[in-house]
Amino acid sequence: MTIQEKAAQMKLDSPKLAATPAKVRDHALELIAQALLSHKNEILGANARDLQTAEQDGVSAQVMKRLRFDEHKLTDVIRGIHDLIALPDPLARIQLKRELDSDLLLERVSCPIGVIGVIFEARPDALVQIASLCLKSGNCVILKGGSETMHTNRCLFALIHQAAVKGGLPESCMFQAEARSEINELLSCHESVDLLIPRGSNAFVRYIMEHSQIPVMGHSDGICHIYVDKDADIAKAIPVIVDAKSQYTAACNAAETLLIHRDIADALLPPLYQALRDAKVEVRGTQEIRRLIDCLPAKEEDFSTEYLDLIISIKLVDSIEEAIDHINRYGSHHTDAILTENADAAEQFMRYVDSAGVYQNCSTRFADGFRYGFGAEVGISTGKLHARGPVGLEGLCTYKYQLFGNGNIVGDYASGIRQFHFQDLDVE
Amino acid sequence: MTIQEKAAQMKLDSPKLAATPAKVRDHALELIAQALLSHKNEILGANARDLQTAEQDGVSAQVMKRLRFDEHKLTDVIRGIHDLIALPDPLARIQLKRELDSDLLLERVSCPIGVIGVIFEARPDALVQIASLCLKSGNCVILKGGSETMHTNRCLFALIHQAAVKGGLPESCMFQAEARSEINELLSCHESVDLLIPRGSNAFVRYIMEHSQIPVMGHSDGICHIYVDKDADIAKAIPVIVDAKSQYTAACNAAETLLIHRDIADALLPPLYQALRDAKVEVRGTQEIRRLIDCLPAKEEDFSTEYLDLIISIKLVDSIEEAIDHINRYGSHHTDAILTENADAAEQFMRYVDSAGVYQNCSTRFADGFRYGFGAEVGISTGKLHARGPVGLEGLCTYKYQLFGNGNIVGDYASGIRQFHFQDLDVE
Repeated sequence: MTIQEKAAQMKLDSPKLAATPAKVRDHALELIAQALLSHKNEILGANARDLQTAEQDGVSAQVMKRLRFDEHKLTDVIRGIHDLIALPDPLARIQLKRELDSDLLLERVSCPIGVIGVIFEARPDALVQIASLCLKSGNCVILKGGSETMHTNRCLFALIHQAAVKGGLPESCMFQAEARSEINELLSCHESVDLLIPRGSNAFVRYIMEHSQIPVMGHSDGICHIYVDKDADIAKAIPVIVDAKSQYTAACNAAETLLIHRDIADALLPPLYQALRDAKVEVRGTQEIRRLIDCLPAKEEDFSTEYLDLIISIKLVDSIEEAIDHINRYGSHHTDAILTENADAAEQFMRYVDSAGVYQNCSTRFADGFRYGFGAEVGISTGKLHARGPVGLEGLCTYKYQLFGNGNIVGDYASGIRQFHFQDLDVE
Repeated sequence: MTIQEKAAQMKLDSPKLAATPAKVRDHALELIAQALLSHKNEILGANARDLQTAEQDGVSAQVMKRLRFDEHKLTDVIRGIHDLIALPDPLARIQLKRELDSDLLLERVSCPIGVIGVIFEARPDALVQIASLCLKSGNCVILKGGSETMHTNRCLFALIHQAAVKGGLPESCMFQAEARSEINELLSCHESVDLLIPRGSNAFVRYIMEHSQIPVMGHSDGICHIYVDKDADIAKAIPVIVDAKSQYTAACNAAETLLIHRDIADALLPPLYQALRDAKVEVRGTQEIRRLIDCLPAKEEDFSTEYLDLIISIKLVDSIEEAIDHINRYGSHHTDAILTENADAAEQFMRYVDSAGVYQNCSTRFADGFRYGFGAEVGISTGKLHARGPVGLEGLCTYKYQLFGNGNIVGDYASGIRQFHFQDLDVE
């Protein structure tokens, strides 16, 4: 079967998965957790083969870390599945209940999106997280993981799929694409696939967005800012800036640019510069900044660059308005923070900055599904439609309108024989 | 200024509109209603010019009806604005409030999408409805209406824009594109425009979807079904079917296909056929149907056709499952109804049919923003992301995550010095 044929079959079967009761989906997740645990050696063996190939290919130590799936990571993903089981069912929630007339009741209920294609980096733990999020939310999922962990992926997928079917989920609730050529085939399945979630490099995500008619959820750039207001607490600000820049530079929620109010620059910059240097961060500043500290020069293009590295650009601003304009112009609408003790300034920043996350006095690195208490995330969305920020169970759902009548016809309302009375009823 | 330059300016100014208090937006709407009322003669005069041109061009009576903007329609749109003013503010609503830790508070608040481009048919009342929905929801809007009502559009736009600015909304909260060539320019504004809402023919909507990187909300086809279950009440069913087909055939929510359970066909078809013929509906049936009533033959392609006319296709099914499969395969995921007195059958239908609207015992023609009590709608979405079904104020909003900290850094949580405690607080 081609990817298109498999996806078409999945599309037809997806209402069956959507209609499964929560306890069936949770029980299947429990069986998946048990299967992963009891087949530990098999999984670690498959991963050893992938690591051996990667080593022969001279893969860097940093990447090796992501490819490795050891006992520690297995424990983590199993705990993640149990966290998901403990979360309430995101489906069949009544979001709106309105009497349109005495015998005409409108309800809006949550339901799965349907068929989701996720293309993700070579990280076996991601496969488990994505599959379990999709099954919990009643979505069929097409998985395409990085080929560097092909054996691990194949082993994990088989175990998860078997356990899901044993738990009563439909046979076609998930399938795995393996060949890189199958990505383009997947991109053409706009009649069967409701949503694509690509993860990986910016260039890759952009490629997906430009080559498919399927809606794409994800983020291209992660250019996050910290604005240090004139009313910032310097002692509080410095650790936040260092954390946001250096705690994990490869993440999209790491800070790339620092905007500093002119009035606080003299006091802040010398100790901040020392702290950044201690954390091995390279500082690039505008001319004004370089008059205050001995850093490298920042060019215009620095402010549009996602370094993903121990580099930060710094610029002075005259006002919070200038900071907001800079962020809305150069940022990627991901996550931006203000450091201030002034509640009015914080409110202004949060209102006017057009980003998925707007923070006061904390690190941009908190933008993450686990840290928001969503259990896990399939990705972070910088799009403004459907789901924004970390996308968990709720972001994998949509809704449908149910209307219960008693033979009601529009003609009666158009002619004026009957009138709508619109009365909202309590939900849940 | 080109469309691109204007849209870029609008994008920069959009946070200003987003941050206006509800009372400013409502006051501006009040001024708009007053301006429309007090400039009645000017508006009707502009419309008279458009109608004269249309008449010279030999436009059909049906289209003339849509181009006409008379006192009756003016009263309607003004009442619509007052309805919108009375609706609660969709912005700054706290949807989630969660303590991540004792000094780290996460809130999810509703906010506008930003800049919306609406391309709509030559119907002056649509211009007023779309503009007022966008302003109430804090969205900047680029309007491109049908050129057949150019003079009316120009007059209405000028009055609305002046009143909006007088009411304190930003100068760039709205602009109007007039030339047809400007549509393609608008389609290229993916850096400034957050959402496109095209209305009009299926071919046009598809053209927009295929020629822009901007997310598109709307619907291409409207192939709605009615399934008459074996437990239907025939006396109730017939008027519903006639209404769904004939009350307004040009609408996307009119029924196109009727699926009838074999067990009820003998009793239903003769009186139904009579009722449909009385309503001047042409019936096309499968061979089986033609053995029961004397109708025209339905071909396979009939079941994928949106007639938008007084024509209906009819087919027998053996079971509710067969009906559901047919609808999910041939339908456009718009609105589908089951006619049955059996609550279990209705529940099964509503769970398994993958459409924005799933109805029991009422006409598909109820799928409409006004009839759902949304005040008005900018369109009906058959997409499954963001908004589904009739799109009112809520569908024009997104949200942002606000995080309030006290110098919190991720490093402390990664190292285990601090732990998240995730506690949901009551909202509103």
